[in-house]
Amino acid sequence: MRAHNLALVLRTVANSANRPSRAAVAAATGLTRATVSALVDDLVAGGLLVEVDPPPRTGAGRPALGLALTSTGPAALGLEINVDYLAACVVDLTGTVRQRFAEHADQRLTDPARSLAALGALAARARLAAESDGLTVAGAALAVPGLVAGDGLVRVAPNLGWQNIDAIAALHRVPELAGLPITVDNEANLAALGELRVAGGDPAVNRSQPGIEPGGSGPSGGAGAVRPGHVERSSFLYISGEIGIGAGLVLDGELYRGVRGWSGEIGHVTVYPDGRPCRCGSRGCLEQYAGQEALEAGEPLAAAALGIALSAVVNLLDVPVIVLGGAYAPIFESLREGIEAELRQRVLTSGLAPVELRPAALGADAAMRGAADAIIRAVREDPAAWLRRLS
Amino acid sequence: MRAHNLALVLRTVANSANRPSRAAVAAATGLTRATVSALVDDLVAGGLLVEVDPPPRTGAGRPALGLALTSTGPAALGLEINVDYLAACVVDLTGTVRQRFAEHADQRLTDPARSLAALGALAARARLAAESDGLTVAGAALAVPGLVAGDGLVRVAPNLGWQNIDAIAALHRVPELAGLPITVDNEANLAALGELRVAGGDPAVNRSQPGIEPGGSGPSGGAGAVRPGHVERSSFLYISGEIGIGAGLVLDGELYRGVRGWSGEIGHVTVYPDGRPCRCGSRGCLEQYAGQEALEAGEPLAAAALGIALSAVVNLLDVPVIVLGGAYAPIFESLREGIEAELRQRVLTSGLAPVELRPAALGADAAMRGAADAIIRAVREDPAAWLRRLS
Repeated sequence: MRAHNLALVLRTVANSANRPSRAAVAAATGLTRATVSALVDDLVAGGLLVEVDPPPRTGAGRPALGLALTSTGPAALGLEINVDYLAACVVDLTGTVRQRFAEHADQRLTDPARSLAALGALAARARLAAESDGLTVAGAALAVPGLVAGDGLVRVAPNLGWQNIDAIAALHRVPELAGLPITVDNEANLAALGELRVAGGDPAVNRSQPGIEPGGSGPSGGAGAVRPGHVERSSFLYISGEIGIGAGLVLDGELYRGVRGWSGEIGHVTVYPDGRPCRCGSRGCLEQYAGQEALEAGEPLAAAALGIALSAVVNLLDVPVIVLGGAYAPIFESLREGIEAELRQRVLTSGLAPVELRPAALGADAAMRGAADAIIRAVREDPAAWLRRLS
Repeated sequence: MRAHNLALVLRTVANSANRPSRAAVAAATGLTRATVSALVDDLVAGGLLVEVDPPPRTGAGRPALGLALTSTGPAALGLEINVDYLAACVVDLTGTVRQRFAEHADQRLTDPARSLAALGALAARARLAAESDGLTVAGAALAVPGLVAGDGLVRVAPNLGWQNIDAIAALHRVPELAGLPITVDNEANLAALGELRVAGGDPAVNRSQPGIEPGGSGPSGGAGAVRPGHVERSSFLYISGEIGIGAGLVLDGELYRGVRGWSGEIGHVTVYPDGRPCRCGSRGCLEQYAGQEALEAGEPLAAAALGIALSAVVNLLDVPVIVLGGAYAPIFESLREGIEAELRQRVLTSGLAPVELRPAALGADAAMRGAADAIIRAVREDPAAWLRRLS
């Protein structure tokens, strides 16, 4: 019960457009002021909330102190390994990126152990930088362009040439990371989760969120506004263009991972059955026509190939929105027309309701941001667990 | 509460492998014997349960009467209109098909109003036959090979040449059907639901079902066995080969309909981008290579085309099972090898876990059976509503 209420108070402050007072939190949550005060005291003592100057107001009476998420409490390490770069970032409880490190090098030429050692070194630098900012790293999450088993083992990452790589064990060998909770997930899944949150449709954040919505002020609200409990059950496909192409599928507001966690392998959907051979052993995979290397070589079939594969997605799943991320986001406008032409021709329902195409809200860092966000979200959803770790 | 317990008692009897006594139902549900007896009395009076001779037993004491679903209570009309036939069936509360009527004729040559009038005449015959069997028709459900809107309007059925057809209104014009609750759904969705039930993974039937499982007796149980609360959250794609090709997608034990209810249009997934023109306006649709007409013409690309489209499904959704229904079920063995070869080549994870292919458990009547089952299931899930209709 206390754990539930701690999370409720933290969420109410987090979703509030401005620094709410204890009284405003009590009003929004339906808890008594005394209960809220005790919970707030614990969250302040645990370094999750701070009391700050109140928002400007014009009403009578002495203004109460406002509450805000700390920028010196728990933080998350977001890590990414991709075909041509390694990266690490530090994200604080407010969701702000505080540190960012990247190293560009072709990982296909590198032994997995050496790639992971280099990533571990980046992660160690990020952790030290976080600590000198007064942050405490709660955990790390690694985005990889491949298939990840439930225990975090990378089963296959075709474009890295990885098979059955225990990335967690490798990272734990770095002294600065020893003992740190580390998870691994598919990069497109993490990017799709990041997109879901940015697009405002994340039920995990908004679920059973009571609130006050000042008329017409919208999500960025006015002073004292608390975001309402609205849950947008959005459905979209996030497609991430890198050397490989991955997709994250959000159905009714939730990431659909597939039975073994291997959904979203759109890069290996066949677009031209007798087409170019692919590293995966198949022929005519989307990746061969619309992966980053094809784009850089000025491949004329890129947008058409994307349109053919995305038409299959819409015919099969009736998703109304396609989000183009990774390398596709900055060249979105040059791809749009070619993709739309295929969707119009090939989607059975295109005449009834057109498919919306849009560029990703997060840029090239989407997967790494999504990785860090997953950890921050876990702390925000269960602050009691974090407080126990501290004690 | 009473509604919930009525459903619980009915479900317990329905899921029991043998005719349980009132005492066995009380033990399985945790309700008192007095409560169970009162509920059973209501269900017997409402024509949903009957008391029958007890199962043979060897224990001491006078054997109690056993309970079973009636075969003279509520029934459902399952209707189907497809490109080359019209059909109607009557299914009773036990799930048994009691009547079946079919008429083979090419509906593409027929005006929609005439097709629906002919189907209405079949449905009227089925209803009269049901009533002379002592059954009361609770409702009708119509399976169509097309896109159905939330209100039952058939938006598009490309192979019938239908656009915006109000099939419910047309059927209600038949005097014998006036006032009967009628629903319309996509045929592949209904067939997939039927398959889900037959495969034993239907959470709507088994949900929170308490039970007694005699060791090792399996689902068909021994005397007095009551099926346990096991819920198999199966995921599979059901693909239905007719003149057109549709699919029903079951993810984690639930039919995934898509945002507008238009998922599963696998017949219009592109397999050969510059291939044959399709009635839908696109080119190279699966339907052109693996629809019933292509199969009947001895199309050599049929299995390969199916394999290409199904590989896209598995790459995107990580479903471990593909069920081949409709016209594919009887020729399953002739298609298997060709499909499997494509899956092996084109599914990224085929080396990690092969995809299971199997023929549908229900035959050509799957969609019509699924339609009727949906109505029977509604009665079984909410017997209180049925009892109110009677009073």
